[in-house]
Amino acid sequence: MEQTLKDIAPVKAAFLEEARIRLDSLTKPIGSLGRLEEFARRLVAITEDEMPDLDKKVIFTFAGDHGVTQEGVSAYPKEVTPQMVLNFLRGGAGINVLARHAGAEVVVIDIGVDFDFGVVDGLISEKVVRGTANMRRGPAMTRQQAERCIGVGIRLAKQYAARGYKIFGTGDMGIGNTTPSTAIASVFTGRPPGALTGRGTGIDDEALKNKVRVIEDSLSLNRPDSSDPVDVLAKVGGAEIGGIAGLILGAAANRVPVVIDGFISTAGALIAYSLEPNTKDYMFAAHRSVEVGHKAMLERIGLEPILDLGLRLGEGTGAALAMLLIEAGLKIYREMATFGEAGVSEKS
Amino acid sequence: MEQTLKDIAPVKAAFLEEARIRLDSLTKPIGSLGRLEEFARRLVAITEDEMPDLDKKVIFTFAGDHGVTQEGVSAYPKEVTPQMVLNFLRGGAGINVLARHAGAEVVVIDIGVDFDFGVVDGLISEKVVRGTANMRRGPAMTRQQAERCIGVGIRLAKQYAARGYKIFGTGDMGIGNTTPSTAIASVFTGRPPGALTGRGTGIDDEALKNKVRVIEDSLSLNRPDSSDPVDVLAKVGGAEIGGIAGLILGAAANRVPVVIDGFISTAGALIAYSLEPNTKDYMFAAHRSVEVGHKAMLERIGLEPILDLGLRLGEGTGAALAMLLIEAGLKIYREMATFGEAGVSEKS
Repeated sequence: MEQTLKDIAPVKAAFLEEARIRLDSLTKPIGSLGRLEEFARRLVAITEDEMPDLDKKVIFTFAGDHGVTQEGVSAYPKEVTPQMVLNFLRGGAGINVLARHAGAEVVVIDIGVDFDFGVVDGLISEKVVRGTANMRRGPAMTRQQAERCIGVGIRLAKQYAARGYKIFGTGDMGIGNTTPSTAIASVFTGRPPGALTGRGTGIDDEALKNKVRVIEDSLSLNRPDSSDPVDVLAKVGGAEIGGIAGLILGAAANRVPVVIDGFISTAGALIAYSLEPNTKDYMFAAHRSVEVGHKAMLERIGLEPILDLGLRLGEGTGAALAMLLIEAGLKIYREMATFGEAGVSEKS
Repeated sequence: MEQTLKDIAPVKAAFLEEARIRLDSLTKPIGSLGRLEEFARRLVAITEDEMPDLDKKVIFTFAGDHGVTQEGVSAYPKEVTPQMVLNFLRGGAGINVLARHAGAEVVVIDIGVDFDFGVVDGLISEKVVRGTANMRRGPAMTRQQAERCIGVGIRLAKQYAARGYKIFGTGDMGIGNTTPSTAIASVFTGRPPGALTGRGTGIDDEALKNKVRVIEDSLSLNRPDSSDPVDVLAKVGGAEIGGIAGLILGAAANRVPVVIDGFISTAGALIAYSLEPNTKDYMFAAHRSVEVGHKAMLERIGLEPILDLGLRLGEGTGAALAMLLIEAGLKIYREMATFGEAGVSEKS
């Protein structure tokens, strides 16, 4: 991890400027394609390539379980985590449909599921824990386990960059995982859990009150140190959140743009950003989730979400949709005619 | 036009409900794909087809000129309108790039350009006017011309529905056309031009003040009757705006979903909606434009925009992007596994 952090540099303004000059020569009023133009500029700067492409795309869906589900924080039983992993591998889940639509592959990683899958075709087995411990009773993971989770993400990023994948998306599966994500949000935004806790997959008012108490108790028991992101991940995080944080660090170190999905992925992004703020230059925030705490998390990093469609599924579904729009920006940059080529008069 | 208005019926709630039942059986928390689910429900209701598809998509880009450009309301010379029409036909414009990305065809219609194209491959010639008259000096069009523009759109909708196109997008090209669109917005929202006028393709502060005065003068001279949408279109509208209004009416009459692009297209949508409010059931608002008046126009109809990306190009570019998301919603509905098929436990 130390070497990866050293490899992350801010993007160079000269590339942003070079891309802007080309964008301003295209047959449209200057800046009239708004954020599509921003996406193109950023892709040029991230890749340091005057004419980047996004021909190979991949979404990493990290799966893990959470001991804190013992506290009744989720509407679904924890058996759903492995059931959904198998659904991902058969191609029937939301992320499969939307990744196909976006032309992206889906890579599913068991990084902390409390189930023994045996050998399953297509599943990447990188199990660090069989579910985290219940953070209301003690730390969710040891520091060493948290570091191993980050290491899994870093290694995957390096492998897939080497295989020629041009853009990464993050995704998650883990019943109960809005609870640790909200705890992480509270640590890094400084806001109380009551202001950040949402309904996750759909709990009622009473269960919501209980969820807030569970998060408050977990924070006061474990006292995560906000200046030590690995400590936060270990004490009140989760395996899939660590994998996502590592993937983002690895993407930045390898100059690959990374699309952050929703609430759980942004918890991972907060860990990565807190370890190395220059990771921000490589991140695209896919969407604003329905989860109430998400806005504050994105603001903490300084990311403007691309979409706002009332999504709260996770898995990487928002990242897949946002990739379609990021690619649209790149195609504008690559394919539009210039004023000169088209014989169109410029602004008077 | 009268027969088309009679053919427009509200969509049936039973189809929305039928689609909801299927959506709720898919392997995701209920409602967790937010607006994607709304898109799917609406497509089922619009088409009255339990399993609709969007295999053939088309965007109609209507081009027209505006006599009011004599008043210095635009940053670009009016020669740009025919130049951009030729750019569309060669495939080099923003709409060509984004329509290709969305898998949609682009149909370009000369409905009012002040230029003689002769016979040009791919251009649909339905010229009603050679540019409108300057609305600061008198009505932009006669009532008969306005009706002919609407008729062009209605006929195109009928033709393309018969050819098996499953979703339409609207688009526009016309130097100066934010000026009549703002006048139309003022008539139907009841707000003064000063509160609705934006910078179009990019005018400075002084030119903006002048543009507001031109719109105020045009409205007080022509006194368009807000209870007579054809009168509004004739006096302070434009040929391409009329074509778009007609296309929307024709889409609704033929049960084809229609994606409204940005500011100019929404002016056309206001004409269509004011002629027949049930057209709303068939409309999708692609995005919220940078143009300040757009929000009030969408609110008048009661449409929630799908995207908010700082776009202000027109041409149908926002409609192409939004089609990708509407199609994403349909694919979720068509392709995701149900809880039963996937062996996933439901909510406890």
